[in-house]
Amino acid sequence: MMDQPPRIGRLRAGPRDAITDVAGVTVGHATLSDGAVQTGVTVIHPHGRDPFLHKAPAATAVINGFGKSVGLLQLEELGQLETPIALTNTFSVPTVAQAQIARCIAANPEVGRAWSTVNPLVLECNDGYLNDIQRMAVTGAHYDAACAGAGPDMAQGAVGAGRGMSSFRLKGGIGTASRRAVLAGGAAYTVGALVLANYGVQANLLWGGQPLGERLAAAPARPEAEKGSIIMVLATDAPLDARQLKRLALRAAAGLARTGSVYGHGSGDIALAFSTAYTLPQLPTEPMPAVAMVHEALLDPLFQAGADGVEQAIVHALWHAESVTGRDGHRRAALRDLLKNLP
Amino acid sequence: MMDQPPRIGRLRAGPRDAITDVAGVTVGHATLSDGAVQTGVTVIHPHGRDPFLHKAPAATAVINGFGKSVGLLQLEELGQLETPIALTNTFSVPTVAQAQIARCIAANPEVGRAWSTVNPLVLECNDGYLNDIQRMAVTGAHYDAACAGAGPDMAQGAVGAGRGMSSFRLKGGIGTASRRAVLAGGAAYTVGALVLANYGVQANLLWGGQPLGERLAAAPARPEAEKGSIIMVLATDAPLDARQLKRLALRAAAGLARTGSVYGHGSGDIALAFSTAYTLPQLPTEPMPAVAMVHEALLDPLFQAGADGVEQAIVHALWHAESVTGRDGHRRAALRDLLKNLP
Amino acid sequence: MMDQPPRIGRLRAGPRDAITDVAGVTVGHATLSDGAVQTGVTVIHPHGRDPFLHKAPAATAVINGFGKSVGLLQLEELGQLETPIALTNTFSVPTVAQAQIARCIAANPEVGRAWSTVNPLVLECNDGYLNDIQRMAVTGAHYDAACAGAGPDMAQGAVGAGRGMSSFRLKGGIGTASRRAVLAGGAAYTVGALVLANYGVQANLLWGGQPLGERLAAAPARPEAEKGSIIMVLATDAPLDARQLKRLALRAAAGLARTGSVYGHGSGDIALAFSTAYTLPQLPTEPMPAVAMVHEALLDPLFQAGADGVEQAIVHALWHAESVTGRDGHRRAALRDLLKNLP
Amino acid sequence: MMDQPPRIGRLRAGPRDAITDVAGVTVGHATLSDGAVQTGVTVIHPHGRDPFLHKAPAATAVINGFGKSVGLLQLEELGQLETPIALTNTFSVPTVAQAQIARCIAANPEVGRAWSTVNPLVLECNDGYLNDIQRMAVTGAHYDAACAGAGPDMAQGAVGAGRGMSSFRLKGGIGTASRRAVLAGGAAYTVGALVLANYGVQANLLWGGQPLGERLAAAPARPEAEKGSIIMVLATDAPLDARQLKRLALRAAAGLARTGSVYGHGSGDIALAFSTAYTLPQLPTEPMPAVAMVHEALLDPLFQAGADGVEQAIVHALWHAESVTGRDGHRRAALRDLLKNLP
Repeated sequence: MMDQPPRIGRLRAGPRDAITDVAGVTVGHATLSDGAVQTGVTVIHPHGRDPFLHKAPAATAVINGFGKSVGLLQLEELGQLETPIALTNTFSVPTVAQAQIARCIAANPEVGRAWSTVNPLVLECNDGYLNDIQRMAVTGAHYDAACAGAGPDMAQGAVGAGRGMSSFRLKGGIGTASRRAVLAGGAAYTVGALVLANYGVQANLLWGGQPLGERLAAAPARPEAEKGSIIMVLATDAPLDARQLKRLALRAAAGLARTGSVYGHGSGDIALAFSTAYTLPQLPTEPMPAVAMVHEALLDPLFQAGADGVEQAIVHALWHAESVTGRDGHRRAALRDLLKNLP
Repeated sequence: MMDQPPRIGRLRAGPRDAITDVAGVTVGHATLSDGAVQTGVTVIHPHGRDPFLHKAPAATAVINGFGKSVGLLQLEELGQLETPIALTNTFSVPTVAQAQIARCIAANPEVGRAWSTVNPLVLECNDGYLNDIQRMAVTGAHYDAACAGAGPDMAQGAVGAGRGMSSFRLKGGIGTASRRAVLAGGAAYTVGALVLANYGVQANLLWGGQPLGERLAAAPARPEAEKGSIIMVLATDAPLDARQLKRLALRAAAGLARTGSVYGHGSGDIALAFSTAYTLPQLPTEPMPAVAMVHEALLDPLFQAGADGVEQAIVHALWHAESVTGRDGHRRAALRDLLKNLP
Repeated sequence: MMDQPPRIGRLRAGPRDAITDVAGVTVGHATLSDGAVQTGVTVIHPHGRDPFLHKAPAATAVINGFGKSVGLLQLEELGQLETPIALTNTFSVPTVAQAQIARCIAANPEVGRAWSTVNPLVLECNDGYLNDIQRMAVTGAHYDAACAGAGPDMAQGAVGAGRGMSSFRLKGGIGTASRRAVLAGGAAYTVGALVLANYGVQANLLWGGQPLGERLAAAPARPEAEKGSIIMVLATDAPLDARQLKRLALRAAAGLARTGSVYGHGSGDIALAFSTAYTLPQLPTEPMPAVAMVHEALLDPLFQAGADGVEQAIVHALWHAESVTGRDGHRRAALRDLLKNLP
Repeated sequence: MMDQPPRIGRLRAGPRDAITDVAGVTVGHATLSDGAVQTGVTVIHPHGRDPFLHKAPAATAVINGFGKSVGLLQLEELGQLETPIALTNTFSVPTVAQAQIARCIAANPEVGRAWSTVNPLVLECNDGYLNDIQRMAVTGAHYDAACAGAGPDMAQGAVGAGRGMSSFRLKGGIGTASRRAVLAGGAAYTVGALVLANYGVQANLLWGGQPLGERLAAAPARPEAEKGSIIMVLATDAPLDARQLKRLALRAAAGLARTGSVYGHGSGDIALAFSTAYTLPQLPTEPMPAVAMVHEALLDPLFQAGADGVEQAIVHALWHAESVTGRDGHRRAALRDLLKNLP
C-alpha cells in the first residue's frame, strides 16, 4: 500500500532526519533478544564530554505521570542533565540507574564524597507484553555497551529500549526525526526528536493524519485501555534556558495527540528537552556561560519543529519496527507487514 | 463543498451536542456589535444555585500561559469554583471581575466582611483585530445580562465573548459539543465542552483531520505567529475530584492539537474542567458530600470524550461563525462562505 | 520594653534597609484614610524605564494560593514582568489592573492592536476588617499617584496598600528590608524585600524568634483562623534567570514561617522575586542580553538574604504601623504601643 | 544543660509522640554499622494490608528538589501510594527500589504482566560523610528486614536510614513526633511526622526557637553550604484527598524553617503526606470509598499539627542520635553530649 512513511509537516528535516542531526548528540543501543527476553537499553549523549562536569540545560514536561522514570525531580529544580539520558524497561530502571552512578563515580571519584551525588536519569516504558519484565534481564554491562556504541548513526524500530515495546497493538520501539526551524530574523536551528513508543489504542491510530487505525482494527470486543507509555526526547542547538526548554518539551504533547493519543490514564507520557548550545559547569569556580537566549516571541518555529519532530519520530518507530515474538508466544506485528495486506 | 461540519470521533453526542447536555449547566451571552466594537461576554453556570454557597469542584490545565485570565490561582489551590465562569476580551477582564464581585456581594452581603472574599473567575482572549479593545466597551451590565439570559439552549459562533474573535485568520468564536462516555463496568457520563476559539495559523488548520488550512491559505508572505488564545471549558456529571478534573482538563490539549495547534508562544491556551456530581458548601458547618469518585483506571472514556469534545467544539465555533467586519474595516470571513468556493 | 525592632540574622543590611537598596528599584504609595475607608495602593518599579519595553526577569512562588492576585499566570509562563508590581486590597484588584492597562496603552499605543496585550500584575490582601472593602474606594488615579510618587525613600507601616491591613490581630501593613549576600568567590549582591503583611494568629507571633504572641494574646475564647494574606516581593541585582528567581522566591516561605505562620488555609501567601541585573526587550528585533547567571552552587547566601529579608520586612511592617480605627469602629493597635505596656 | 528536648507548640502529642500514633502505621529499620559502613533502611507502612491492593491517598511537596528520591512522578499524578515508604541513602535507592518491585511481584504475581507495573517509592538523603556511600552496602535483604521488623514502637536517632546522617554538623538521623488536631466543630485527628534529618548549617540551628547553633558553632572559617537533605513524612487519620494532602505536606516547610533552614540549594527537602482514613482499590471492579473529606476551612489545626510535628520530629532526631564514627574516621557528635558541656 505505501512504500514510504508519511512526511509530517512543512519544515525541512536534517540530513539524517534523526536527533543526531543536532551536532554532538549521539545515540547507542544495547538490544536483548532471546525468547522471553525482548528488551534493552538506549542511551542519548547530549555531547561528547563528561556530562557530570559539563551539564546540559534541560527540562521536562509531564503530560501524564503514570510512570516510573527517575531523575526528573532534580532536573526540574536545577534545569540540567548530569548523566546521559537512558531509556529502558520499567523494572530495569534501578539497574540502569545504578550503572549510571557507577560510571559517574568511575569518571569522578569524589562523587558522593567531597562532591555531591549524581542524579541518575532513566526513562522507561513497560515492555511486559513481549518481554518477561520480571526476569530483569538488563545489566549494568548493557548500559555500558549502549554508551560505548553511541554514535551519530542510529538504528530505529525494535532495537535498544525499543526491542520489546508495543504501540497501537503493533510493534513499537525507537524512532527519531529532526526538523530545521528558521526563526523570524533568520537564525536557524535544528530540533531533533527521539521517542520510545509503547502506547496507543489501535483503532485511534492516525498515520500522517489518516485514520489508519480504523482500517487496521478488527472490531475489538471491548474498548482497549491506552496503557504503555511514551518517552519523547527533544534536542536542539538553539540557545534556550530551562524555562524555555520546558515550553519546548510540552509541544511533544501536540505531536503525540496528532497520532491519536489522548494521553490515556495508564500511559506515562513524558517529554524531555535539552539544549546543546552551552553547558553549565559542575564547579562553581569555573566561569558560567554568557549566552543570549532566543527571544520568546521567536520560539514558534522551534515549537512547530518539536511537535512535528515527535510525530515524525513516532511514525518512524512504527515504520522501522520489525515483527517480534516474545514472552509466552506473544507477538506484535510490524506495521509495514500489515500495510502490504490492506486493501 | 461541505454541508455538514465533520463529526469528531466515535463517541455519541448528547441531545444538544452542547455543554448544556450536562444536566444543570446553562450558558448565556451578551453580544456587542457596533462598528469598531465587536465583543461581548459569555457566562457558564455550573448549576442553578448560588455558586458561592455551593462550590463546584474544578481544576485547570495551563497549556500555554500567555494569558490574562484571573481566578486560576485560588482555583488551583482549593479545587473549586465559586462564581460562574465568565469569558470576555482581554481588556474587559477587570470590568467583568468587578461585576462578579458585585453580584456575589449582592447575594451574600457578608462577603469581604464576616465572610472571606470571593474569587472572580474570568477567562479571556484578545479580540483586538476585529474589536477596538482599547475602548473597553464591556460593562458590568453586560455581565449581568449574560447571566440573566443563561439557559440550556445556546447560540454558537460570533456571539458573546466570541463576537470579535478570530481563528486561523477566519472568524472564530464560541463553539460547543458533548460526548457520552461509557466506562468499563457500565457507568455512563456526559462530558460537555465549550470553547472560545481565537487561535491558529491558517495553513495549519486540520478540519476533522483533513489539511483544510493548506487549501485555504494563499501562500503567505511570511510565517504567521500563532497569537490569540483559546479557552476550553469542560463540564461533566462524572464524580471526579479536583485532581482528576485536572487530568481531564489536560486532555483538551489533545483535541486542540488535532486542529493544527502546537500551542504557539503567543496563544494563551487554558483548559478548565468542573464536575456537577456534587458541590462543596461554603460554610464548614454544613455537611461535606460523601461521594465515591470514579476509579482512576476507568477514566479513559472520559479523557477521550474531553479531547473529542474540544475538537468538535472548535469545529462548531468555526462552522457557526458568521463573517464580521469591525475595527478599521478589519474583516474575518466565515469558514462556511469560503468552503463554498473551494474547488 | 523594646526601643528597637529585633535584628534578623547575621547578614548586613543595605544603607536604607529597604528594597530600594537594590539600585533602580523605587516604591510609591497612595493612602486613603477617611473613616470607614482605610486602604490604598503601593507600587514597586523594578527600574526607571518603561517596564513593558524592558521586561524584568521574575518568578513567583505560591505558598498558599487562597488569593486573588492577578498576572501570575503569564509571569509563570514567560518569567518576566511587564508592568510595575502593584499591591492593593482584594476588591480593588480590577480597578488597579484596569489602571495598569491604561498606563501601558498611554505609553505604548499599539498595545492590544499591532502589539500583544499587556499583563496586569496586581497582588492583594483583604483589609476588610478595618476598611469597608465593599466601597471599592480605590481609583485609577490612586494607582497613578502611587506611580508618580515612587522613589528610593519609602514609608512603612499603615501606608499605601498597607493602610488597612491587620497582622496577628495587630496593625499590619507595608514593611521592607534588605540584606547583602556575599557569595563564595567574592561577588556581592543585594536582596531587598517588601511585604504587605495581613496575616497571622496572634498567639503564634514570633518576634525575632521570641514567642511574643503568647505574651500579647489574652486567652482567646476559640482558636483563630489564619486569614488575611501576605505578599512578599524580593528584588535583587544578582543575575538570576526565572528558574533561579523562583527558587529565591520560595525562600520567603522560610522567613514567613519564622514569624509563626504555618501558611494558614485562608491566607494567600504569595512570593515574587525579580532581578534588576538585566532586562528582556519587548521587541524581538532588539538584542537579547548575554549575561552569565550565578552558578547554582553559589545561591545559598542569596537564599539566606531572601529569608532574612522577608522576616525583617515583616518585623518592620509591625514596628512601623501606627494604630488605625476604621470600619464600624474596628481598631487595630500598633504593636509598639502594646510593647510599652508589657511587663 | 538540658535534660529534656524542647516541646514544640501548644498542641497535644499522641501517646507515643510518634508517627505510629496514627492507627495502623508501623515503622521498621535495618541498621548497618561496621567501620566505614554506617547506613541503613527505614520503612513506613501506611497500614497492615497489601499496599498495592489497597492504596493510601498521598501527595508530596517538593520544597527543594535537589534530590534523587524516586516514585514522586506517579504519586503526583495519581495521588496514591502503592508500596511502603522506604528511606535510605542516595546511592542505595536503586537497590531498595528493586527490592520493592520484587516484594510486590512476590505478593502479586501478575504485576508487570496482566497488571500494570508497581511504582517504587524510595526517599533518600546522602550520608556520605559518615558512610562510604560508594560501597552501596545496602541489599534487598535489608529492605526485607526493615519491613519484617516494622511495628508501632520505633527507635529514633542513628538507626535505619538515619544511621549515617548528619544534621547541623551534628549527628542527625530519624526522628518522629505526633500531634492531636482538634478541628472547629470538634472532630479530632492525629498527625504523625517522621523525618530523616541530614541537613542544616550549624550556626543557624534553632532549638525550640533558641539560637543554639550560634553557641555551638566555633567561628567557622568560611560559610558552610546547606548540603544534605531532609525527608519529612506526615501521616494522618483525617480524611483528606490528595489535593488536601499536598497542602498538608507543604506545611512541613514551616516546621523545617523554624529549625533554621532556608532550604539550601544543595538540600533535597521533600515532604510527603498520606491519609489512613480510607484506601483506593487496585482493581476497578472493587467499590470506591465514599468518604466525606474535611471541609477546607477546617484544615488549620491539621496544618499546625503538621508544622509542629515536623519541628518536633527534627528535635527528636537530634536528641536521640548517638555519636557515630565512620568513613575515614569522620565523626559526628551527639547533640546531647555537646549540651552537657555548654556553659
